[in-house]
Amino acid sequence: MTDEESLRSTAARLLSDTIAEIVGADPVASAAARQRQDSLTKPRGSLGVLEEVSIQLSGLAGVCPPPLPESAAIAVFAADHGVHAQGVTPWPQEVTGQMVANFLAGGAVINAIAAEVRARVVVIDIGVAAELDAHPMLLARKIRSGTGDMTEGLAMSRSEATQALVTGISVARRLVADGAQCLITGDMGIANTTASAALIAVFTDSDAALVTGRGTGIDEATLLTKIDVIRRALDLHQPDATDPVGVLSAVGGLEHAALAGFILGAAALRVPVILDGVIAAAAAVCAQALAGQAVCAMIAGHRSVEPGSEIALRHLKLRPLVDLDLRLGEGSGAALALPLVRSAVRVLREVASFDSAGVVDKEQHQ
Amino acid sequence: MTDEESLRSTAARLLSDTIAEIVGADPVASAAARQRQDSLTKPRGSLGVLEEVSIQLSGLAGVCPPPLPESAAIAVFAADHGVHAQGVTPWPQEVTGQMVANFLAGGAVINAIAAEVRARVVVIDIGVAAELDAHPMLLARKIRSGTGDMTEGLAMSRSEATQALVTGISVARRLVADGAQCLITGDMGIANTTASAALIAVFTDSDAALVTGRGTGIDEATLLTKIDVIRRALDLHQPDATDPVGVLSAVGGLEHAALAGFILGAAALRVPVILDGVIAAAAAVCAQALAGQAVCAMIAGHRSVEPGSEIALRHLKLRPLVDLDLRLGEGSGAALALPLVRSAVRVLREVASFDSAGVVDKEQHQ
Repeated sequence: MTDEESLRSTAARLLSDTIAEIVGADPVASAAARQRQDSLTKPRGSLGVLEEVSIQLSGLAGVCPPPLPESAAIAVFAADHGVHAQGVTPWPQEVTGQMVANFLAGGAVINAIAAEVRARVVVIDIGVAAELDAHPMLLARKIRSGTGDMTEGLAMSRSEATQALVTGISVARRLVADGAQCLITGDMGIANTTASAALIAVFTDSDAALVTGRGTGIDEATLLTKIDVIRRALDLHQPDATDPVGVLSAVGGLEHAALAGFILGAAALRVPVILDGVIAAAAAVCAQALAGQAVCAMIAGHRSVEPGSEIALRHLKLRPLVDLDLRLGEGSGAALALPLVRSAVRVLREVASFDSAGVVDKEQHQ
Repeated sequence: MTDEESLRSTAARLLSDTIAEIVGADPVASAAARQRQDSLTKPRGSLGVLEEVSIQLSGLAGVCPPPLPESAAIAVFAADHGVHAQGVTPWPQEVTGQMVANFLAGGAVINAIAAEVRARVVVIDIGVAAELDAHPMLLARKIRSGTGDMTEGLAMSRSEATQALVTGISVARRLVADGAQCLITGDMGIANTTASAALIAVFTDSDAALVTGRGTGIDEATLLTKIDVIRRALDLHQPDATDPVGVLSAVGGLEHAALAGFILGAAALRVPVILDGVIAAAAAVCAQALAGQAVCAMIAGHRSVEPGSEIALRHLKLRPLVDLDLRLGEGSGAALALPLVRSAVRVLREVASFDSAGVVDKEQHQ
């Protein structure tokens, strides 16, 4: 076996081992959480979606109440896209590297929101076209300098897709080893909504026109170009949804592959992962195709303006927590959901029962 | 003038002085905020509703960027309702006082959420039927031991309504003097969704059936009773929306009057006030009727399941920030919105501009 073959088989084994670790929610802990919610001093069901989140996290952790995710980490996976050459966005490609520098300098929106919600920000260069200087917040994990143009050939090789998946897994493992009790997806990559739409079209079996949106805010002509670009790429590759690594290789982004791995890593460790917008949603449908039970670890942070996000979340049966017409990315919508997730857990951990507080329970009163 | 007349005229003067202090948003600061949002390193408009919040708070504070509301206080106004006798809820009236004890012991949902969002909780006894023991977190401001039954007579006298309004104003002033940069409405009062629906029906000129909901979760028969009770009260009093104190006196709750005053107090001090669910929405339409510009200080914390909430918020032209099928009250939905509000302000205060970060701006690039 050559060195490259050996590396490839190690990566493939790491991926399959992680997938094998992923199991569904613990039904005993879920049931205990549901029962506990009904004993707390509030009308039954009155915390709506937050009750469901607390039950999900109990099932994921296998214990009720689950740990409070006080320590959280936002992993911003950054990469460039060969499909940028097709004119799918007015933003120049160098903005990806410039925004990474902005994250590292603490000047971006995700830094401001992370400060508010007390989360750590880590940036991963998984495939930025520019050379980036070393920085304590930056993990240098470049697989290649951006993907190839999906309308002309594969975005990346199968081996590169697997490497990116495994890198995402190892980032999740490292952040959890460093103390993170909740992981948050972030992303940066000019043109990455195009790859997202292509992935969502494949994994949810949807028409390109339905899952393609205006990204950072493109005009009608660019939107039509974008849909046409995605159609041409899908025609060229005919990707098979039952071969997720093949789909990533054909029309994915390096950050999508890494994010899919990051989600699988979280699920294997039984740690919740809050999904940001359409890029994370595309990675999530891919992660689900690789390991169906990975959905147990996923929380949809927000409802993005991008139509593909809605379709992907419906496919995953996830209800987004924040709905504020956001379309920024970076992890912003997911980070905003963190206090909601923590509050859901705190209710289960900290609120008194009718019995312990001496409050008359309507259900027993009637 | 008797002592009572003197007291009444002092209260009336305090109320009218506060109303006179309330002015609209500062257009210069609002425009500066809008312009600043467009210079920050993100696609224009990509933070959706959060951008609007930041612009509103700049206009309210009269400065861009506005202060970060790090210090926030949740004021839970508690009172009982004579209309409870009409069978509008299965919960016994003593639960109001029991839940106040739960708040003071730190065992309620609002305590758990307040801990997460770093907000202070203060409980105001504005009219609980039970005698409550003194506690450092409790402000004893009882106007009377619950309202009268609105189907048989006035809920309270005009003088009591004015006193409750002025008490709400003084609570707002005190919390802000103590350092609060953001106020949050909370409430507790068995049967208070009935008074809320009656107030919203009057101030938004809506039919009782449209604004009445299931509160803590009543059955169909109780819902029909509740609607009939509200209809009978409105028939009896024929309240006039242009006389807000008269409306409160006829069909309001003591906590509604105090909350309306609390909102007016916030607006007069140019401090944002985050509204919780349908009780706060009812108080807010009343506050708006007293001082139209008070809306400039209001942020709708969440979309309650109660139909009256939606109608009141539409009347106020406010879009709720959190939408998670909550129907608890206590201030829970409003407190959950606090990190969103703070994040909106942080973006304006902390995020770099395209120029300062050296990021290429699409708009200038094109």
